[in-house]
Amino acid sequence: MHDDSATDAQPADQSAETDATDRAADGDATGTDEFTVTPYDVAGTVDYDRLLEQFGADRLTDEQVERFPDHPMLRRRVFYAGRDADRYLDAAEAGETHSIVTGVGPSGPMHLGHVLVFYLAKRLQDETGAHVYIPLSDDEKFYAKDLSFSEIEAATRSNLRDLLAVGFDPERTRIVVDRLDADVVYPQAARFAADITQSTVDATYGDPENVGLSFYPAMQATHLLLPQLVHGRHPTLVPIAVDQDPHVRVCRDVAAKERFDVDKPGALLGKFLPALDGPGKMSASSDAPAIELTDDRETVRAKIMEHAHSGGRVDVDEHREHGGDPSVDVAYQYLHTFFEPDDERVERLAADYRSGELLTGELKGIAAEKIGEFLAEHRERRDALGDLETELEPYRLTEKERAQLRPSVFA
Amino acid sequence: MHDDSATDAQPADQSAETDATDRAADGDATGTDEFTVTPYDVAGTVDYDRLLEQFGADRLTDEQVERFPDHPMLRRRVFYAGRDADRYLDAAEAGETHSIVTGVGPSGPMHLGHVLVFYLAKRLQDETGAHVYIPLSDDEKFYAKDLSFSEIEAATRSNLRDLLAVGFDPERTRIVVDRLDADVVYPQAARFAADITQSTVDATYGDPENVGLSFYPAMQATHLLLPQLVHGRHPTLVPIAVDQDPHVRVCRDVAAKERFDVDKPGALLGKFLPALDGPGKMSASSDAPAIELTDDRETVRAKIMEHAHSGGRVDVDEHREHGGDPSVDVAYQYLHTFFEPDDERVERLAADYRSGELLTGELKGIAAEKIGEFLAEHRERRDALGDLETELEPYRLTEKERAQLRPSVFA
Repeated sequence: MHDDSATDAQPADQSAETDATDRAADGDATGTDEFTVTPYDVAGTVDYDRLLEQFGADRLTDEQVERFPDHPMLRRRVFYAGRDADRYLDAAEAGETHSIVTGVGPSGPMHLGHVLVFYLAKRLQDETGAHVYIPLSDDEKFYAKDLSFSEIEAATRSNLRDLLAVGFDPERTRIVVDRLDADVVYPQAARFAADITQSTVDATYGDPENVGLSFYPAMQATHLLLPQLVHGRHPTLVPIAVDQDPHVRVCRDVAAKERFDVDKPGALLGKFLPALDGPGKMSASSDAPAIELTDDRETVRAKIMEHAHSGGRVDVDEHREHGGDPSVDVAYQYLHTFFEPDDERVERLAADYRSGELLTGELKGIAAEKIGEFLAEHRERRDALGDLETELEPYRLTEKERAQLRPSVFA
Repeated sequence: MHDDSATDAQPADQSAETDATDRAADGDATGTDEFTVTPYDVAGTVDYDRLLEQFGADRLTDEQVERFPDHPMLRRRVFYAGRDADRYLDAAEAGETHSIVTGVGPSGPMHLGHVLVFYLAKRLQDETGAHVYIPLSDDEKFYAKDLSFSEIEAATRSNLRDLLAVGFDPERTRIVVDRLDADVVYPQAARFAADITQSTVDATYGDPENVGLSFYPAMQATHLLLPQLVHGRHPTLVPIAVDQDPHVRVCRDVAAKERFDVDKPGALLGKFLPALDGPGKMSASSDAPAIELTDDRETVRAKIMEHAHSGGRVDVDEHREHGGDPSVDVAYQYLHTFFEPDDERVERLAADYRSGELLTGELKGIAAEKIGEFLAEHRERRDALGDLETELEPYRLTEKERAQLRPSVFA
């Protein structure tokens, strides 16, 4: 049911919002240095530097990375660029209100790649007290895909459990589901909709098939501005795969209007985590299965052993003699992105792999072990959750917050 | 503030939805037999028969009119055409569920022309027990016009008071405000949005300026289908000025999809009530003031005496000799449309006017008297209302109805 997500293995989510390759596939890469990146289409081998030029975003400086709480995804430049990162960092350092917004499009169970950004967000929350806002776009998944609402609702319930398992601080975290929280999200989206022209949407996303997709950027602008609508004007950071940057830019253009008392949301732009069967392949174009959050250690190991693209040589003798290439080895990429936080160790793995001392099977075994352990812990917290509605309650907008966001018709 | 409504004097409302002549003026009538009618533009002298051909709707038959509860607007063919009127009449006669949907776009105080259709709806409710659903599109007024939400909210409060003054049966009437009731309206609109293509909207309304206007047809489809979403599949009739028929057709196309368990909403198509200063002029193109629901008898008289376009002769002698033309006399038109329900009397007025026996001033005096009396009674009921929120409560969707319409994420 859910095998078409281009974001399965993305470090930065806003996730399934990229998975509609069926929506606007406006170009296949043909040459090796040609690539296409739009919110609905990723093709070819992505040149991350050229993307920044194209999008007009800034590479993170060493100084900025040092100012963030330490996390491998930042330290190793999985998130490698940003917009207005300094404003966020200033607020975080000054103990002033600062927020992270990162969401999910619930179209199926979350995969390994979906969940990493939420653990990054939790780290930022733990270290500096960031508010974390998590929108679930159950409406957009209906507009964009051939899924019924009952399928989307099942995915929503499953995704919510995974989000709750991350262990965010309910005092500083709000989870919002578009249709469930339509009493506040739609009236706020209406405020922004009048300032989003249809031609902007056409130019950014390609001609939308239906009016739901036309409107969705107004819902998404609401998602990204929600922390400020609740807590007042303050710096916000949206960690997001770089292909999703146009979403942020549409919202930034709206936010810049003087009549909205909000800062433009900042962004933290990330690289794609490759699908198991190879760098340059998103899981939409991949034949390999994704690692599911429900996979046990054995399943993880089997998937990695069988499907993970190797940077090693054709046989052990060759490998021992010439060494492997960690830069295209998916097991190594997973360790480097998230699962081996120790810099010395990850560098040693790369060096040993390059020298031929470490074999592909061994490297895969290490990755499988680390990922399996991470998932076992995640699953344990997930399984400990009780009734979903009850568990979600502390993370929902409070009545006081809702009252603030609802229209005041009778005022 | 509110002087640009093309619907000020329309018998069939869904009213201010026509008033955005600034939105899509795609043609001015140049010759006498050329005219343009789109939901956002009325120009030229309207040929009501050609409109029916163009829209593919049916002229009401004598038999159909007889089957409706007696009302001058039907008897005299102010509402002169329809879609699926028989299905509605069958249900009404069989004592089965049947509904009327007629709404308001709150952009300013209601004018005389806005309110007439609600009195027609009340008659239909009184006589056959019709459910009456009244949507207020406070979102669309924001998308389409240069009004702030606080201006729209003031208009909403004022319009609500006028709607409550009509005296609908709260058991069988629901008043829904898009942003106020977004918890149910948006999730339902999302269901329909995926089946409304952007190209349908472009073709029907012209290219929308912003994504709010793109989406609005999904909100409107929800309005027209709401009685069926609440009470189950049954015949619905939407009394509407004929220029608004495209709204109904967009909804009918959606409703026809098999996965929605609803009948296509029927329509009752009406002629435009002219502005005070002349037939063929809607108040958007009129320089004359509209008659406001708050106008007292003296003000009504003054406006009619000064501004009502006369079908009489240049002076009394001429008039006595050659007589006047009631078909272009606005005072007569108002009496004929609504304010003189007695057929014999209205025919006598026409005959006397034609013969020259009845002078323009006398005819205007009769119209002013009748309208003034109507408005005095309306105003008395309006002034007797207490706190708006309290008065509205019995007309709002009940908690049970809302639960039915909200998404069942935790089901």
